[in-house]
Amino acid sequence: MKIEVVTIGDELLLGYTIDTNAAHLARTLAAEGVAIERRTTCGDTAESIATAVREALDRTGAVITTGGLGPTSDDLTKPSIAALFGREMVLDEEHLAWMQERWRTRFQRPMPESNRQQAMLPSGARKLANNHGSAPGIWLEDDRGRWVAMLPGVPREMRGMLADTLLPLVRERLGDGGRVVRSRTLRTTGIGESHIADLVATIDGGVGDVGLAYLPNADGTDLRLTVRDATSDDADARLANAAARLRTVVADAVYGEDAADLAEVVLELSRSLGLSIGVAESCTGGMLGARLTAIPGSSDVVRGGVIAYDDAVKRSLLGVPEAMLREHGAVSDPVARAMAAGVKTAIGVDAALAITGVAGPGGGTEEKPVGTVWIALDFCGEVQSRRYVMVGDRAEVRHRSAQAALEMLRRRLLT
Amino acid sequence: MKIEVVTIGDELLLGYTIDTNAAHLARTLAAEGVAIERRTTCGDTAESIATAVREALDRTGAVITTGGLGPTSDDLTKPSIAALFGREMVLDEEHLAWMQERWRTRFQRPMPESNRQQAMLPSGARKLANNHGSAPGIWLEDDRGRWVAMLPGVPREMRGMLADTLLPLVRERLGDGGRVVRSRTLRTTGIGESHIADLVATIDGGVGDVGLAYLPNADGTDLRLTVRDATSDDADARLANAAARLRTVVADAVYGEDAADLAEVVLELSRSLGLSIGVAESCTGGMLGARLTAIPGSSDVVRGGVIAYDDAVKRSLLGVPEAMLREHGAVSDPVARAMAAGVKTAIGVDAALAITGVAGPGGGTEEKPVGTVWIALDFCGEVQSRRYVMVGDRAEVRHRSAQAALEMLRRRLLT
Repeated sequence: MKIEVVTIGDELLLGYTIDTNAAHLARTLAAEGVAIERRTTCGDTAESIATAVREALDRTGAVITTGGLGPTSDDLTKPSIAALFGREMVLDEEHLAWMQERWRTRFQRPMPESNRQQAMLPSGARKLANNHGSAPGIWLEDDRGRWVAMLPGVPREMRGMLADTLLPLVRERLGDGGRVVRSRTLRTTGIGESHIADLVATIDGGVGDVGLAYLPNADGTDLRLTVRDATSDDADARLANAAARLRTVVADAVYGEDAADLAEVVLELSRSLGLSIGVAESCTGGMLGARLTAIPGSSDVVRGGVIAYDDAVKRSLLGVPEAMLREHGAVSDPVARAMAAGVKTAIGVDAALAITGVAGPGGGTEEKPVGTVWIALDFCGEVQSRRYVMVGDRAEVRHRSAQAALEMLRRRLLT
Repeated sequence: MKIEVVTIGDELLLGYTIDTNAAHLARTLAAEGVAIERRTTCGDTAESIATAVREALDRTGAVITTGGLGPTSDDLTKPSIAALFGREMVLDEEHLAWMQERWRTRFQRPMPESNRQQAMLPSGARKLANNHGSAPGIWLEDDRGRWVAMLPGVPREMRGMLADTLLPLVRERLGDGGRVVRSRTLRTTGIGESHIADLVATIDGGVGDVGLAYLPNADGTDLRLTVRDATSDDADARLANAAARLRTVVADAVYGEDAADLAEVVLELSRSLGLSIGVAESCTGGMLGARLTAIPGSSDVVRGGVIAYDDAVKRSLLGVPEAMLREHGAVSDPVARAMAAGVKTAIGVDAALAITGVAGPGGGTEEKPVGTVWIALDFCGEVQSRRYVMVGDRAEVRHRSAQAALEMLRRRLLT
């Protein structure tokens, strides 16, 4: 099955909103074996909507739109597409009653008249339930089986409706013999793309007959395995085989799959071992703590730490000796180690991570260029440390530093 | 001038990459008075590229593409579009020599053969300089004045090329009589959308003849003023007038314009007053410190702070009395105040911000539901505090808390 997507809205065309719906639709449909052939974005005029949808229908006979279902006057998706199918707009009494009830119970006041438009549907349309908002989605189909599914533009509503009501309809149409495109991503960090490629080249038979893409990003290098045009069971088996083959050479560097977050992985490992974590941050200024505490339930592992941005704080709260700072500089092996040991003592944790570096853009020297970062881990009194040279701008250097610190702890927890 | 944009890449169509280039192009071109009529995304096949670009050219005669200029075999943009214009691909000796030199000096090794393709250009093409990468952009034009500009897909390279070389070309074509669409955004925080609307309603004559959009987000509410179809000078004058009118009612809440970051605003104000900043963070776990230190040059203002996620850290490093924690709970007015005063003493700063709250999803009670946050500011020994109930999920509650803390300091610095 081939589908085209039409995303509707002046906000998209003017660049005020980034089109995240399109990417979500694409990933979700690809997992069902549905390829998106083309994506079009058009503005909020009846003519541009009708033209874009008509052209897409002519090419594939199957179109999903997002946007333009709200109560405001610039929401023209429904009438434009109804006209393409030669349908009238009619009032759906059932939906009107539901909306009026919703306003009464939820907002304790009568529904504004402007919302009435949301209950106007093309005749013969099938409603797609919206469990996250008041505008229903719409499925319109002609006697030749050509269809348009209209979803709301609000991402939360669009995602809910896609999962709850549209995907089951699409699956119905695909039937049992559906061919899928399925991916599985191994997330690695601390190992370069070319190094991984060299290791993969040593696997006898490679990763089998699946596609392998290297996706370097600030978290590390993601390895995406993709199987196309296979049955669901076959795809899963081939992906499992390929992932197992990949792991024979990069097992250590893989911290999780798909959307795994290294902070969450480290928290779970620490929790299972009953260990507590503390941080001492200079150039990252709190990012490592922020990443760890972003995870719900982190409070049973994370105690806290010290943001030692200024050397005076390294001295006063972490007990880094002034002479050490003078002799080696704040970005140095001994200072990183002293910071880790210092925060471990100050707040009493099992594992203490310290980061000190030159995030840039200023502050670099020949000996310690921008991107130079020392990371230390005091693990139950045993201290290890390492020097990194991170690439990228200030934000990337900081992000990579927090990631490298988490990876240092993950590896230590696994030994 | 009307333009269509075609973004090229399987990664976009599969949803692995979110199309941020499209939004950037739209915003940048709109500021020059160029309307993007439609945006199309197609995959990495010669046929789909040729079809999408041909259709777009037929509609507007002016097309910008992104993507598909790299050295790998799936980069087919140049030959596909060259064929549309009836042009051959020819080797550009000058660019080849430049690339070879670049490899020698930058990477200390010969250029790989696969990069040679990047020096193949459609005959009669105009090169667009790439100051951030090795693939040049291309401007191709026929004798009827129809043109296609091909930009790279890597956002940094695309943005640089757009600003450095494509915009001047587009401006040349627009001539002096160009009609522009221009926006100006006032960023507010700590004041609700409906409250602002009520205030705006009191302005005699409103904001004049410009559009006003309310854009609520986790930073606050942005107020976007837009003028369409005006001359450049006229647009600027009308926007200045509208912004001045808006400021008469919301001046206090406006912390900056367009892409202003509240952390940067606070840093600049503090720097100008010669004040230092420290933080004590519980539920935000380092986010406030991370935001402040994300700004280059923050080290002359930000000293650091304490991530007091666990109550034991609030006691040991911030000196919050155990009895106070027991009596009022960690999320309370006295504890927030004690945290601010504690970090001020511990690291010796002029302004100390403290945040303690229930970020959720767990931990809420009837008395202190999820989203309850106390923020305190110890400013040169004078302590103020306030209770907030932040809406949104864990990430939003934390983000809004850091923003509210910065705003508390900004307002104090202005008095």
